[in-house]
Amino acid sequence: MQNFTFHNPTKIIFGKGRIADLGAEVPAGQRVLVTYGGGSVLKNGTLDEVRAALKHSVVTEFGGIEPNPSFETLMEAVKLARETRTEFILAVGGGSVMDGTKFIAAAVPFPGEDPWDLVIRKAPVKKALPFGTVLTLPATGSEMNSGAVITRKSIGAKLAFGSPLLFPRFSVLDPTKTYSLPPRQVANGVVDAFVHTLEQYLTYPADAPMQDRFSEGLLRTLIEVGPVTLREPEQYEARAAFVWSATLALNGLIGAGVPQDWATHMIGHELTAKFGLDHAQSLAVVLPALLTECFEAKRAKLVQYAERVWDLRDGDAESRARQAIELTRTFFESLGVKTRLSEYGIGAGAIPGLVEALEAHGMKALGEHRDITLDVSRRILERAQ
Amino acid sequence: MQNFTFHNPTKIIFGKGRIADLGAEVPAGQRVLVTYGGGSVLKNGTLDEVRAALKHSVVTEFGGIEPNPSFETLMEAVKLARETRTEFILAVGGGSVMDGTKFIAAAVPFPGEDPWDLVIRKAPVKKALPFGTVLTLPATGSEMNSGAVITRKSIGAKLAFGSPLLFPRFSVLDPTKTYSLPPRQVANGVVDAFVHTLEQYLTYPADAPMQDRFSEGLLRTLIEVGPVTLREPEQYEARAAFVWSATLALNGLIGAGVPQDWATHMIGHELTAKFGLDHAQSLAVVLPALLTECFEAKRAKLVQYAERVWDLRDGDAESRARQAIELTRTFFESLGVKTRLSEYGIGAGAIPGLVEALEAHGMKALGEHRDITLDVSRRILERAQ
Repeated sequence: MQNFTFHNPTKIIFGKGRIADLGAEVPAGQRVLVTYGGGSVLKNGTLDEVRAALKHSVVTEFGGIEPNPSFETLMEAVKLARETRTEFILAVGGGSVMDGTKFIAAAVPFPGEDPWDLVIRKAPVKKALPFGTVLTLPATGSEMNSGAVITRKSIGAKLAFGSPLLFPRFSVLDPTKTYSLPPRQVANGVVDAFVHTLEQYLTYPADAPMQDRFSEGLLRTLIEVGPVTLREPEQYEARAAFVWSATLALNGLIGAGVPQDWATHMIGHELTAKFGLDHAQSLAVVLPALLTECFEAKRAKLVQYAERVWDLRDGDAESRARQAIELTRTFFESLGVKTRLSEYGIGAGAIPGLVEALEAHGMKALGEHRDITLDVSRRILERAQ
Repeated sequence: MQNFTFHNPTKIIFGKGRIADLGAEVPAGQRVLVTYGGGSVLKNGTLDEVRAALKHSVVTEFGGIEPNPSFETLMEAVKLARETRTEFILAVGGGSVMDGTKFIAAAVPFPGEDPWDLVIRKAPVKKALPFGTVLTLPATGSEMNSGAVITRKSIGAKLAFGSPLLFPRFSVLDPTKTYSLPPRQVANGVVDAFVHTLEQYLTYPADAPMQDRFSEGLLRTLIEVGPVTLREPEQYEARAAFVWSATLALNGLIGAGVPQDWATHMIGHELTAKFGLDHAQSLAVVLPALLTECFEAKRAKLVQYAERVWDLRDGDAESRARQAIELTRTFFESLGVKTRLSEYGIGAGAIPGLVEALEAHGMKALGEHRDITLDVSRRILERAQ
């Protein structure tokens, strides 16, 4: 096991009817900015419940944070927060609203001239507004971590940033508040959580048996409950297991003390930034191609993955490992998430531009061995055709 | 899954050489009380490393906290902390030192007349001194939870208390600092972590697949690395896996959203208080007897435990479940921890007194169904002969 520091102070408030507990979490009398996205929280009543729970706060609302939250939109919220002297932010939504809110929380007290420096220059976050979240889309794990991904539309960039000051103070996870999600977003969420787990698991053996077992438990759970919750969105138990799995997949626990990959995410971000693929679609395209391209480096863990997650025990180790990659692809496709660039209308001609974008964003040495060069990324994209 | 709140703000600083990082965690210039136990931390150099790391603090030391830390001893530390106007406490030791330190942290600012009220009357902890820990004995999980068990020698009572204010600010887990432990304490630690996990797992199905998988992962890891780390104490990887498993077994995560038992602990505490059994010895005695006595209520989870933890797939479900109980007993015995009251020289004549002690301590309805009456506890103790 590698040395590690693990510190996750987010309070999780999980279950049916827990939005009512918000009142006890947000200090009474504070000026609260409630952030949300496209309006589904207005339609399905979630925002009404939030308003009722915050009756002892002075509430301002900012809607319209889009999928892949943009710097341009978020800076409007920063302006509003400064004008209203916001003391606490409450994000009501999925990964985009939560990630966007992390940026707002850091940008409002940012002493520099341009808060984009937080993202592009990794300017240190020395202060942030406190914030909490009410989750409506299980997928990104943003409700229990301190990272965020922000897009700058004007330059076609999608980049990560984070700080230990950007953990939510609390997150309310009421599975029933995710019932109204369209199937595409549920399927995307399952793929997203699955790939988050694999990015921290499918590297090389590191004598970390607990982390391996926890990851395998997450993967098996997602394989079991993913199709159920897609088919029967209001079956509480499957949805609850999915919600908690998606949170645990990226709260730092399974990644503590082990090598991590994240190349699939970095390459996928370029597909989203350039062609607008959903985040999970981009992962479903890149991951199987990457596992095939990096087969040798990942062989030992692929064999373990085949046995412990997919119950493959017959035949030689190599064929089991290759079969596990195919079962992963089949799993994504069974959820309705396509796994080939061509299925999204992206041809081979797009690949040089994608590799250039990786270069422009400093992604020249990806993966757990830092040996996924631009050339390897190109071959991964070619395999993803 | 049941509704739950999970909040664990303890920062874990894990790995070789991490005591050196203490200096960054304890605010410079503060008056720090360092608490420890019987002197092994003096002999093996751990305390010297702690002193070096705290060179910017004003340090007072309090040694002599005994196994099953006693109110009597701890009140001396409370007196010293008040006299020296302690601002931060650092516990260097195992579960007893850490639990004792939690009591000290709550007792020093306790406004009532008698801090024993914190334990016996569950007087609420409204304020506590901040504290951190340096772990030297993996077992109790006290390094990442907010509970403690305190003994009052004068009345033969061993009782639990806790408060959300009693999470350590940080815990340093350096597996090499546990190398010098005697084998008996290592074996006890493995049994303790194993039973902690079972108390939260072996109840009844609750549609919590992740919690089940995590628990099964902990149990399998302890079965794998327990014997290795007992045989080869300085094999880093096995010891590191054991240390992290023991922490994860009782940090609240696997118990969030599921029913919990804890009857084995409550009955075991009486064995320790009356006859001085090591905590883990008491658990090893009670658990197999309890699983047999409560077989019907736990049947479904016992079958799952048999299959997923012990790989038992042949024969009928009942015989697999019964075999899993026997394998659990055999596992404890393989570590050198005896599992029968008679092997500790305790005869049937002791049972009425133990049942009376349970009654005196309010333990009349134990277990996940609260149906382990005093009569059932008596039968469990009879089976444990």
